[in-house]
Amino acid sequence: MPSDESFVAVTCTAPVNIAVIKYWGKRDEELILPLNSSLSVTLHQDQLRTTTTAAISRDFLEDRIWLNGQEEDVEQPRLQACLRETYTLARIYGVEGDLSEVARRGSGSACRSLYGGFVEWQMGQRADGRDSVAWQVASESHWPQLRVLILVVSAERKPTGSTVGMQTSVQTSDLLKFRAEALVPARMAEMARCIQERDFPGFAKLTMQDSNQFHATCLDTFPPISYLNDTSQRIMQLVHRFNAHHGQTKVAYTFDAGPNAVIFTLEDTMAEFVAVVRHVFPPEANGDKFLKGLPVTPVPVSDDLKATLAMEPVPRGVQYIIATQVGPGPQVLDDPDVHLLGQDGLPKPRPAA
Amino acid sequence: MPSDESFVAVTCTAPVNIAVIKYWGKRDEELILPLNSSLSVTLHQDQLRTTTTAAISRDFLEDRIWLNGQEEDVEQPRLQACLRETYTLARIYGVEGDLSEVARRGSGSACRSLYGGFVEWQMGQRADGRDSVAWQVASESHWPQLRVLILVVSAERKPTGSTVGMQTSVQTSDLLKFRAEALVPARMAEMARCIQERDFPGFAKLTMQDSNQFHATCLDTFPPISYLNDTSQRIMQLVHRFNAHHGQTKVAYTFDAGPNAVIFTLEDTMAEFVAVVRHVFPPEANGDKFLKGLPVTPVPVSDDLKATLAMEPVPRGVQYIIATQVGPGPQVLDDPDVHLLGQDGLPKPRPAA
Repeated sequence: MPSDESFVAVTCTAPVNIAVIKYWGKRDEELILPLNSSLSVTLHQDQLRTTTTAAISRDFLEDRIWLNGQEEDVEQPRLQACLRETYTLARIYGVEGDLSEVARRGSGSACRSLYGGFVEWQMGQRADGRDSVAWQVASESHWPQLRVLILVVSAERKPTGSTVGMQTSVQTSDLLKFRAEALVPARMAEMARCIQERDFPGFAKLTMQDSNQFHATCLDTFPPISYLNDTSQRIMQLVHRFNAHHGQTKVAYTFDAGPNAVIFTLEDTMAEFVAVVRHVFPPEANGDKFLKGLPVTPVPVSDDLKATLAMEPVPRGVQYIIATQVGPGPQVLDDPDVHLLGQDGLPKPRPAA
Repeated sequence: MPSDESFVAVTCTAPVNIAVIKYWGKRDEELILPLNSSLSVTLHQDQLRTTTTAAISRDFLEDRIWLNGQEEDVEQPRLQACLRETYTLARIYGVEGDLSEVARRGSGSACRSLYGGFVEWQMGQRADGRDSVAWQVASESHWPQLRVLILVVSAERKPTGSTVGMQTSVQTSDLLKFRAEALVPARMAEMARCIQERDFPGFAKLTMQDSNQFHATCLDTFPPISYLNDTSQRIMQLVHRFNAHHGQTKVAYTFDAGPNAVIFTLEDTMAEFVAVVRHVFPPEANGDKFLKGLPVTPVPVSDDLKATLAMEPVPRGVQYIIATQVGPGPQVLDDPDVHLLGQDGLPKPRPAA
């Protein structure tokens, strides 16, 4: 049996981030250096988070890792790259290294999850990638009215993985190169301005344009990559008609490497937009699990708005909605009960879902 | 009653053309001058054609026009632009004017239907558009093995009209401008080479890439334009997997401003590809009308190929197929019985469909 004194465990939670200026394509595959800078919104961990426990003990015989309860090969290159960087950090223990450089080596966009609020990942210029790091554009308390809805869509087709997809795009899409070099720099500056000034219509329009341009470069890839399905397209149409009805841009969509929509809106519009989603995508009869996360007051959809939308309801096109908001960066949890690993260094039995 | 001598009628048929390097966007709305050159294949009129009768008589009191049996306003600007040009031509009767300039004034891409075979519409440089004309790259007998399949897909969403769609793209898509200026010139040259050398893999790959890039610029338009639905996407996937199975590019797709696919292949591959479409999109029980046009011998799909495709059959995703080939330009019909207009200048009753 291991002795208590030799065992140290730390448990952290990290947030999910959603890019509003998209990252797609690397200029260096090993160092994970991006073709262009990107900018994301960190989502609140009350609704979505990852939890990680790291444990060390003099009684442990080897390095082992589990993801979602499944043991993974600790020798795989990306994991080794992260561990190497972290050991590096351990050597300079007490001096704070730039963790976003470590995170980048695991998964590029993960480096944007190291801060709360609004985060930019600068592409950097150096060949060794030391300047390709994330920094906070504005904190999680900067724009308290902003709300986020995740519309989970059923996917029939298995989407192309983003690592392979990006490689194919870099090799074959002329539009991607042009976007990265000629268009993204101005978009980064404009997006930062919209966030700083809390200019929702500007933020919303550019968010939609950048999502569309990212998916355009996927379609320009050969063979083409398609993440948007008919339900995604209907959500896009719904958003544009909703905005047209109101005569202003009150809602924005963005899509990553899959058909789910992430919607940005303001507090005062969330209830009406959720009602409209419910109208166009009626949930199962037992629809009480349709909305998760932040509470949203049910409101009616006016006949006038229904007429502008002019969309036939498609039952179950959207499986459920998660309502959330902007949130903080990673958190260290104090309660020892939250550790995912026991004193034997193995995953604890997980509670039934 | 009009006297026979005063009545003159001419009936022509004109072909449909399918662009393999796409036209999208005008640099001059009134003259219909395109942002870039385009290149198309003229389809055979045995399967698809338009029929037009023009009649003049000293007894007629006014200009009138019918489209598909419905009378249209003869004063509408595009029609007037065509008629003005044609009068122009009448004055120089006996001297052949460039008809493609006339056709362009009606609908840009229509000018490519004035020739058979493979036709280029040069964008031209002049402000008055006199050099924005079509010419034949290769005749209809140049590549006799080439076959065309039109896969008619049911559309739920009403597509954006191409005139308005193009205007919005020109105003909002940075990728469209880049494509037109920086990418299309090299693509035009490469496509002409593929056609001249009957290089099917080269022709097929570039055809698919250009279709995808056109739809990418539609998606980059704001609000975005989407012509491809889930069935279109499945057809694209089917083509790529079919080619992967054979280890060579034996089939190509292209899509215009709607979800229907136009497939290019060679004579020796047509039967197998039709069988594969039938496998993935099983027709109605009474499937004898599924294939129209050129006869295609039924062949089985190997289990091996079915395994590579790995696609669940979607009944009725494709409504029917028209099998056709490359064909000649407009034809004047000699038989007076084919005139659509009677001696009174009014449309003849049309035979029941």
